[in-house]
Amino acid sequence: MTQTPKLNRRDLLAGAAGGLAALDVATRPTAAFAQDAAAPKPLPPYAAFKAAEAMIVHSAETIEMKRGFGGMSVVTPSSMVYVRNNVPPPDAAILADRNAWSVSIAGVAKPVQLSVGDLKSLGVETVASVLQCSGNGRSFFENKPSGTKWTVGAAACIVWSGVPVRDVVAACGGVATGMAFMTGTGGETLTAGLDPKTLIVERSVPVKAAETAMLAWEMNGEPISLAHGGPLRLVIPGYHGVNNIKYIKSLAFTAAETDAKIQKSSYRLHPVDVKGAPDQPSMWEMPVKSWITAPLATAKPGRVLVTGVAFGGINEVKSVELSIDGGTTWTKAAFTGPNLGRYAWRPFAVPLDLKPGTYRLVSRATDDAGITQPADFPANGSGYGHNGWRAHGVDVTVA
Amino acid sequence: MTQTPKLNRRDLLAGAAGGLAALDVATRPTAAFAQDAAAPKPLPPYAAFKAAEAMIVHSAETIEMKRGFGGMSVVTPSSMVYVRNNVPPPDAAILADRNAWSVSIAGVAKPVQLSVGDLKSLGVETVASVLQCSGNGRSFFENKPSGTKWTVGAAACIVWSGVPVRDVVAACGGVATGMAFMTGTGGETLTAGLDPKTLIVERSVPVKAAETAMLAWEMNGEPISLAHGGPLRLVIPGYHGVNNIKYIKSLAFTAAETDAKIQKSSYRLHPVDVKGAPDQPSMWEMPVKSWITAPLATAKPGRVLVTGVAFGGINEVKSVELSIDGGTTWTKAAFTGPNLGRYAWRPFAVPLDLKPGTYRLVSRATDDAGITQPADFPANGSGYGHNGWRAHGVDVTVA
Repeated sequence: MTQTPKLNRRDLLAGAAGGLAALDVATRPTAAFAQDAAAPKPLPPYAAFKAAEAMIVHSAETIEMKRGFGGMSVVTPSSMVYVRNNVPPPDAAILADRNAWSVSIAGVAKPVQLSVGDLKSLGVETVASVLQCSGNGRSFFENKPSGTKWTVGAAACIVWSGVPVRDVVAACGGVATGMAFMTGTGGETLTAGLDPKTLIVERSVPVKAAETAMLAWEMNGEPISLAHGGPLRLVIPGYHGVNNIKYIKSLAFTAAETDAKIQKSSYRLHPVDVKGAPDQPSMWEMPVKSWITAPLATAKPGRVLVTGVAFGGINEVKSVELSIDGGTTWTKAAFTGPNLGRYAWRPFAVPLDLKPGTYRLVSRATDDAGITQPADFPANGSGYGHNGWRAHGVDVTVA
Repeated sequence: MTQTPKLNRRDLLAGAAGGLAALDVATRPTAAFAQDAAAPKPLPPYAAFKAAEAMIVHSAETIEMKRGFGGMSVVTPSSMVYVRNNVPPPDAAILADRNAWSVSIAGVAKPVQLSVGDLKSLGVETVASVLQCSGNGRSFFENKPSGTKWTVGAAACIVWSGVPVRDVVAACGGVATGMAFMTGTGGETLTAGLDPKTLIVERSVPVKAAETAMLAWEMNGEPISLAHGGPLRLVIPGYHGVNNIKYIKSLAFTAAETDAKIQKSSYRLHPVDVKGAPDQPSMWEMPVKSWITAPLATAKPGRVLVTGVAFGGINEVKSVELSIDGGTTWTKAAFTGPNLGRYAWRPFAVPLDLKPGTYRLVSRATDDAGITQPADFPANGSGYGHNGWRAHGVDVTVA
């Protein structure tokens, strides 16, 4: 049993052939995608810095971390953080002068255009938070909804630094009256000839999210890469990934939700065979969730350390339990590292002494509001929000 | 004023020329070192994964992070963590099968040889701690001691995962009676024909350090790279870097300190013009320290955000103050992110409104034992342990 991968990109780079490997990845044509459905897809150029052996490339815009990678160190290495772009990212030229990127602030007493350089003098805060795609866990739905077949790897725990939105709002005289939503708009280039409303990455969240949101320029101690929304990203701790607008060019407080497709009908929790619509729940706050990271298939008899991660989403995770019999009996797990705050995840471990046999390992977390992961999560049209503990389990053969 | 570098290696890799840049660095001959004292030295191959623009390469075995890099995100990115090897690292082949690396445990009731695979089933813990070279700050001594001219960048805050030494000791029946020290030995290949005692990386620390020490296989969520001591490193939170033995092959509880040169006469705090000797203080526990990370030279009039990092070493940092007049008057600074535990550092920030002029910015931290950084730190023969706040300040011109 191992908890960590044997080789990573850094090891490779440290060896003599490292440069060649990087060159190979960086120069592979994007057209290579979908040429061979059976072979693993290569990383797209803008995500060439990812640790290839740790990632599953579903498409050029959907890349997840393999289960068991990411380590025990609380913070997910940037080289393994999943990538999900609704439309292709802007040209990398937008990173040439990061401080020159600007965002308009609207729906406030004094609307203004602020550069990243301006924002950096307003204030700074650092927060660790779980970034997770709404569709993470989609592959565990039995009704096989369409969409990327994410398992557990469209999630990461990231340390963000930037200016709190509340400081920006204060500098702009406060939110204008009557505004119920905070609406962020991404700076992607939209394909000409198509209705912009069907393409634009523009999301509205309840205005209360402004209390904890941040305009971030740094991810895990480095300027945010293009793949993750640099030079400036809206980060809303506890909210599903789609609300964390990349390349943010507008932050507006609005009376109503945007009528962009990504808000109006997409990212809605709705029954199977019913279309997405504005009256259905939007994929905003994340619920409590956990999963096992090792062992994933086999282990030797004797001492086995079962590890995993747990988080509370919009709440703080309080505890996590492990079952080795598919959920009949449960043992409390111990968190193994520092608490990075209510929006971070916590690695956990349980030492076991296992005899030969087959075990169904499942974990279930409880948040500080007393909410425990459900055994099952109801099927829904788009396969969103799966946090049922049963389907996230793993079968382990001890022999 | 910027708090973060404009470009990092990941940006470069995301661009078309990224692969070529990596190839260039990885294939530069080590012999290029010292060919041109004026030109920046290239990264040695085993550290080719470092962000070149963020690093100062003093030599192939001494590489520090430039002041102002490393970000506000608490954890220092692995691509920017300083490198300091007392002797060249072992061949990268030792990373081929990480779980097969083994360490002997001696000076316990039941001595044993344990592989990394064995250790991984014993237990796991994650700790964030500051790793800092004993000579960090040497360049600030006025007596110009010999040795690498580190400024502030031979320090990093790292998240380590591995097995607590106390769990290993428990599995071995406890420490044998009469053992006052914990002695770690590195697995470097020593040059033939020279006295091994003058080369071997073997350090003894007080046995109490076993309570918090760890045998770590993971750094910032990834398997530890060769440059940082993978596959297995002894981590002693709160202790100077030299005690954190890389490629550890022996962990022994001993009655006396090792007589290796690196312990006996090196890494001793001794008067100028006196040779190192066993009766002088060894570079074990780190004291409280802080420094400013931005601005470092110039700023525009108006709102300026002064940022820095502070840590308590063996104690927890409790507070940090800023002065813009060279230490005449002080203002309390605010920590800007999560507390990763007593051994981690904490980024801080102070918003100021500065008029044109020249300012001497200094910071001073206080730990939870009530110890404040001294204004000055006494000159010593090897230039170790500088934590005086005065010399760590920066002159900033606001215009």
